[in-house]
Amino acid sequence: MADNETFIEGRNAVIEAYRSGRTIDRLYVLDGCHDGPVMTIKREAQKASTVIKYVTKERLDQMSETGHHQGVIAVAAAYDYSELEDIFKKAEEKGEAPFILLLDGIEDPHNLGAIVRTANLAGAHGVIIPKDRAVGITSTVLKASAGAINYTPVVKVTNLGRTIEELKERGIWFVCADMGGTLMYDLDLKGPIGLVIGNEGSGVSRLVKEKCDFIAAIPMKGDIDSLNASVAAGVLSFEIARQRLNG
Amino acid sequence: MADNETFIEGRNAVIEAYRSGRTIDRLYVLDGCHDGPVMTIKREAQKASTVIKYVTKERLDQMSETGHHQGVIAVAAAYDYSELEDIFKKAEEKGEAPFILLLDGIEDPHNLGAIVRTANLAGAHGVIIPKDRAVGITSTVLKASAGAINYTPVVKVTNLGRTIEELKERGIWFVCADMGGTLMYDLDLKGPIGLVIGNEGSGVSRLVKEKCDFIAAIPMKGDIDSLNASVAAGVLSFEIARQRLNG
Repeated sequence: MADNETFIEGRNAVIEAYRSGRTIDRLYVLDGCHDGPVMTIKREAQKASTVIKYVTKERLDQMSETGHHQGVIAVAAAYDYSELEDIFKKAEEKGEAPFILLLDGIEDPHNLGAIVRTANLAGAHGVIIPKDRAVGITSTVLKASAGAINYTPVVKVTNLGRTIEELKERGIWFVCADMGGTLMYDLDLKGPIGLVIGNEGSGVSRLVKEKCDFIAAIPMKGDIDSLNASVAAGVLSFEIARQRLNG
Repeated sequence: MADNETFIEGRNAVIEAYRSGRTIDRLYVLDGCHDGPVMTIKREAQKASTVIKYVTKERLDQMSETGHHQGVIAVAAAYDYSELEDIFKKAEEKGEAPFILLLDGIEDPHNLGAIVRTANLAGAHGVIIPKDRAVGITSTVLKASAGAINYTPVVKVTNLGRTIEELKERGIWFVCADMGGTLMYDLDLKGPIGLVIGNEGSGVSRLVKEKCDFIAAIPMKGDIDSLNASVAAGVLSFEIARQRLNG
């Protein structure tokens, strides 16, 4: 794969890429595969005039980065990160107060994909990730996002702390999750908000935490320390969605 | 690895296994590794009189199933599935109405691990998985559960539909998640409850869905179809926890 290309692997991911209007340069399909979802993909490919190449399972396995191509791999231009303005534009179009997820060092591509998927469905207007010590948008992330990456802007920034300062000047309030915080139901999360999710192992970094206006606690009843990062992001995002729905 | 053995890989997973009182037969530690978490593990191993073997990184890499051993692999007896009675006992000990997660065909070990972790922290008393067409407790699941598997009983059943019938006779109500359902905030989820989570691709099977008393909808605002299975399980479990907290 060339540097300026992205592989989109798996049936749902490829269908979603077409439906969102993304330009696919080439499509590789398992030769002899005629089931429903594959036929749908072929129809989309014909509509978009994509070149279809029929290949063996061995060839697809060899090309695959995720190991789960399900008989289809689409080749598109490399992921084009969005700008902060795209997030504000999205909020404005919907007439909603901005709701942004900031990921402070998510390393696992499955978690990043699942979080973008959650952001899309919980009504967040974008996701911000740092340039260093974090995973970027890879094929595995694209697949795990189940197509959400085509709709929800992802912005890559050099310094998360500095971006938080910038966004504060634009009226965003910041909340991060930690056990010592205020029970999330007792916080008002309806306004313009940035939700900070920490690294899988070490949580939110000290410097970023100090910049947050609120610390939210998910009510924990169990014997262990913390939720999986993408589950925590889901529980907090839908608490924000619940408050906005009732707001 | 022998059939009757389980590998527990990674620092948190091994520390949690010791803390929960699980019997570790042997412990493999990366030779020359002396940082804090590893020293904690060695102290626990000495307390429990576990044989420690110091090995090279190559040896650990070769043994590892998850690919993320972080310098420690503990070998324990194979995972001992619990019985349904263990779940009811757990609820009774806490003086709470039973709260059970039933997984209708979860295939990804990371999802299963994350869901057991969520079950533990949301206050569920156990998790039920089917014998066929679903992942069981593997090393990857143990690691992804971050130790929760040592506290939250996991029961494997032959026929999920039949188990639901049995549990209904014991007063449990069943809810599954689907887009066409009632908004989850409008359902009363405070009583004895079984929350059914469907397969990653195909959702809850028709036969199981027909047995459910309620269908709950997570309010979705986005452009794609569904959340990651472990995120959906998290959002629904914490809605049950929220209602019980306010109950």
